[in-house]
Amino acid sequence: MRQSILFTKTLKEAPKDEVSKNAQFLIRGGFVDKLFAGVYSILPLGVKVLSHIEHIVREELCRIDAQEVFLPALHPVENYQKTGRDGIDVLFFTEMHDGKRLVLGQSHEEVVTPLLQKYVQSYKDLPKSVFQFQTKFRNELRAKSGIMRGREFRMKDMYSFHETQSDADRYYALVEDAYRKIFDRLALGEATIKTYASGGTFSKYSHEFQTITSSGEDTIYLCESCRVAINKEIMADVNGQCPECGSRALEEKKAIEIANIFKLADRFTNAFSFTYTDQEGKKHPVIMGCYGLGITRTLGAIVEVHHDEKGIIWPESIAPYAAHLVSLCTERADVEAADELYHRLVAQGKDVLYDDRAGLRAGEKFADSDLIGIPKRVIVSPKTLANNTVEVRQRSGGEPEYVSLSAI
Amino acid sequence: MRQSILFTKTLKEAPKDEVSKNAQFLIRGGFVDKLFAGVYSILPLGVKVLSHIEHIVREELCRIDAQEVFLPALHPVENYQKTGRDGIDVLFFTEMHDGKRLVLGQSHEEVVTPLLQKYVQSYKDLPKSVFQFQTKFRNELRAKSGIMRGREFRMKDMYSFHETQSDADRYYALVEDAYRKIFDRLALGEATIKTYASGGTFSKYSHEFQTITSSGEDTIYLCESCRVAINKEIMADVNGQCPECGSRALEEKKAIEIANIFKLADRFTNAFSFTYTDQEGKKHPVIMGCYGLGITRTLGAIVEVHHDEKGIIWPESIAPYAAHLVSLCTERADVEAADELYHRLVAQGKDVLYDDRAGLRAGEKFADSDLIGIPKRVIVSPKTLANNTVEVRQRSGGEPEYVSLSAI
Repeated sequence: MRQSILFTKTLKEAPKDEVSKNAQFLIRGGFVDKLFAGVYSILPLGVKVLSHIEHIVREELCRIDAQEVFLPALHPVENYQKTGRDGIDVLFFTEMHDGKRLVLGQSHEEVVTPLLQKYVQSYKDLPKSVFQFQTKFRNELRAKSGIMRGREFRMKDMYSFHETQSDADRYYALVEDAYRKIFDRLALGEATIKTYASGGTFSKYSHEFQTITSSGEDTIYLCESCRVAINKEIMADVNGQCPECGSRALEEKKAIEIANIFKLADRFTNAFSFTYTDQEGKKHPVIMGCYGLGITRTLGAIVEVHHDEKGIIWPESIAPYAAHLVSLCTERADVEAADELYHRLVAQGKDVLYDDRAGLRAGEKFADSDLIGIPKRVIVSPKTLANNTVEVRQRSGGEPEYVSLSAI
Repeated sequence: MRQSILFTKTLKEAPKDEVSKNAQFLIRGGFVDKLFAGVYSILPLGVKVLSHIEHIVREELCRIDAQEVFLPALHPVENYQKTGRDGIDVLFFTEMHDGKRLVLGQSHEEVVTPLLQKYVQSYKDLPKSVFQFQTKFRNELRAKSGIMRGREFRMKDMYSFHETQSDADRYYALVEDAYRKIFDRLALGEATIKTYASGGTFSKYSHEFQTITSSGEDTIYLCESCRVAINKEIMADVNGQCPECGSRALEEKKAIEIANIFKLADRFTNAFSFTYTDQEGKKHPVIMGCYGLGITRTLGAIVEVHHDEKGIIWPESIAPYAAHLVSLCTERADVEAADELYHRLVAQGKDVLYDDRAGLRAGEKFADSDLIGIPKRVIVSPKTLANNTVEVRQRSGGEPEYVSLSAI
């Protein structure tokens, strides 16, 4: 991609109302733009990063036999009356011309449960697991922390269906394992802590995955030896002790909840009378689990964890481009040599951002490149061309390397 | 993908209220499911097809320097007041807790125009083109024809921004060319006709791309020699003549509008006072074009064009899987041989649907396979295994081929 074609430009200053680092860098770098509080447009560089995040999530979930669907955003309010969730205060409502009331999906239990009910009749049809990447709508009283708590945001939600609670528990553990692999691949593994949280009415605990960062909205208490944490909300319920080792030596941390896993038991299947028939012909309620992973939140969390004072430092696995080719060439022959190098990289199948913009000083180009944060920078200049080389630098620091043009 | 894991099942009968062939086959095959009139869930096989369609569209648009964005679905109503479109009758509205009114996006001029305005100041910043794949919401009085006229549907919309009308016209022709390539790759090229339609207030004509099919909602008049058509709506305006050759020998056809291209001139940029500065420092309104392509509609149109009485016949380019491996094996050694073949194909990177379901007769499996419509069927049975072969059949017909196991 030629940077001269890209419609976004980097901004020197972030909007004053954006206090979190992730929002500041993502807006300044041209990854997202705020339409209004809690609602953001994803710009070309952001689309690239999100697609890489989603690719990783999809791969790991397909490995545990989850199937991708794409469910509607418009839900009949009757489904919420059945589950008793038509009164929750974060719902957006809309209406058809005939007066039929609709809910904008903030979660999809009310759609996925009756959908699976159409296809699952017998124990032979279980277990099943379905997931989607969807826009979610939450009528938040206050939107804050940039893309962290949005009124409209992108999320991966997954729902699993089982004969028994023990089979649901087996799958719950598989999802936890898949999530760990996802966080590792997103370079969030170390900073992301499995956290005990309220299980609601149908389970003692649920589990959140909290990424430790000073700008986090949540407070958690970390047990360093178990590498688990307890959400502040339930500290009284666990008597201030780690639920795994009983230790009281817990450290208070700020964190962002990027994912959660819930045991739903028959909370939603009962509401829809969704049962299956066992081998003896007896009917039982189907047992459910649900598993969220905030895609836009994860984007923000990655920036919170991977940045310095100059900008973002993308992990390789999700960087918008594999390399940032920065040309400092101005003379025609040099520009042509830089163009040729770019075309050669593209022909090799390399996904490269090519800073071919004319009229900018080297310092301006490097500042932009630091802000955008592509992990590998390849500098082509009259000086490097004179030596038949390019200069290669890692965004994370270290000494430059000089690579011969023919070796690229 | 093992078919035994897939949560969907084929249905013998389509719901009675689905009259169009595309809806009948897509529902019976397990590609989509209706939540309520005009609102469908996309199921795993449907997600695969849609992702292939979107991949082709994305590739062709990136070739004409369009940049992918992902814009919000929630729009401030003030933006519609500026363009005077807050009164159009297909809008869904919702409201925040503080009373702020929002529109659910049915098109994105009101969001993309002020977005580009933030980044475009000078002639040097033009031209630009951005596109997205988004869910669109239309408060239709009546939803009909399956996924063809939905209240919620998936669409590719693109917007281009130019210094002059002649530059916008140049890009308009590029998009037309990209669309032709897309339709060819989607096996809709022959059936899809460029159609003159109303240009609205800002242009004499717009152009639609109409796919000829007996179940189409639109009526067009085809000029066979020019391979263009005229939408019935403007037949009086063109005096019943082909606008290209003047012929009156036009044939009436039913068709589905799967895409359209519009010249917007300064209709939307004026509403936002979106100007650019030319080389002499003078300000001019930015000139716009917009280019829609219905993704769920295209899915439906492909099924309308590519089916027989037994089910869908997917074009290879967008088939949910490259091959349908149908096992008729029941004895353990045979089942193991079939499993091994499946694993070998997966290891080769082949995306295969494997009908490993036990307890079904061959006729039932073939009927399902005909309905689902994967272009290549590979049958493995005790008989073929005895000869160390598989039987390969094309969904479109013709004689079976026998291929040795070792050659696969």
